[in-house]
Amino acid sequence: MSTETWFQGHLSELSEDECLELAATKAVGRIAYTGPQGPEVIPVNFLLREGTVLIRTSPHGALGRLVHHGVAAFQVDDIDDFTQSGWSVLLRGRVEPVTSDELPAEDARPVVWPEGQRSLHLRLTPSTVTGRRLLPA
Amino acid sequence: MSTETWFQGHLSELSEDECLELAATKAVGRIAYTGPQGPEVIPVNFLLREGTVLIRTSPHGALGRLVHHGVAAFQVDDIDDFTQSGWSVLLRGRVEPVTSDELPAEDARPVVWPEGQRSLHLRLTPSTVTGRRLLPA
Repeated sequence: MSTETWFQGHLSELSEDECLELAATKAVGRIAYTGPQGPEVIPVNFLLREGTVLIRTSPHGALGRLVHHGVAAFQVDDIDDFTQSGWSVLLRGRVEPVTSDELPAEDARPVVWPEGQRSLHLRLTPSTVTGRRLLPA
Repeated sequence: MSTETWFQGHLSELSEDECLELAATKAVGRIAYTGPQGPEVIPVNFLLREGTVLIRTSPHGALGRLVHHGVAAFQVDDIDDFTQSGWSVLLRGRVEPVTSDELPAEDARPVVWPEGQRSLHLRLTPSTVTGRRLLPA
């Protein structure tokens, strides 16, 4: 993984704690999974909670069907075009629905920017957490 | 696809031309593909050229092996946390190596931020180009 990305030059591998700390600073990440037509990447609002990724979505959309796919990757990054630097974090693991009695209190649930029904909560429990930082040249 | 993302509320579908125009404003995108351990997402420098995505990578890394996977998705976005708005574009299609006689002139090739050997050029030829804009609430 670390030999081919834009992180190679001034590469700094991030620890798992650093990955989670950096990811927690962002409001939007990208969930990637293999759909019927191949890889899909969808931006979503999220919240990190106890080392897992909580997302809130519509029960009727493609992400609702993710429940049956199982495995996904959640990517968060911050890239500065001016200094040509940044970081990227990838959490990979299984996705499952969160039942209502497992849900955190209303004010600890993911905030969703758009309007519309978002009654399905999904949780990605990462089996691997990896990340890299590209330092300015 | 359009019913479950953070784009639902103030959703505006982008035309293919708008998608390519917006994507061309960014220097870094994310290539997603299905690896042996499931979905992978890797940030890369890129260049749009004649409606295709050119990326430049190491011949020995995971992206080099992408040549054999075939299908990938390339995602570009711009998200403003303050106004809670942004856009996201997804180009999906086959990835193949670019032979040296097909390569554009040196100054028309993708600029890569990090140091290191980047002798392999890949081209993603999109079969679908889709995108959405989330307007501020």
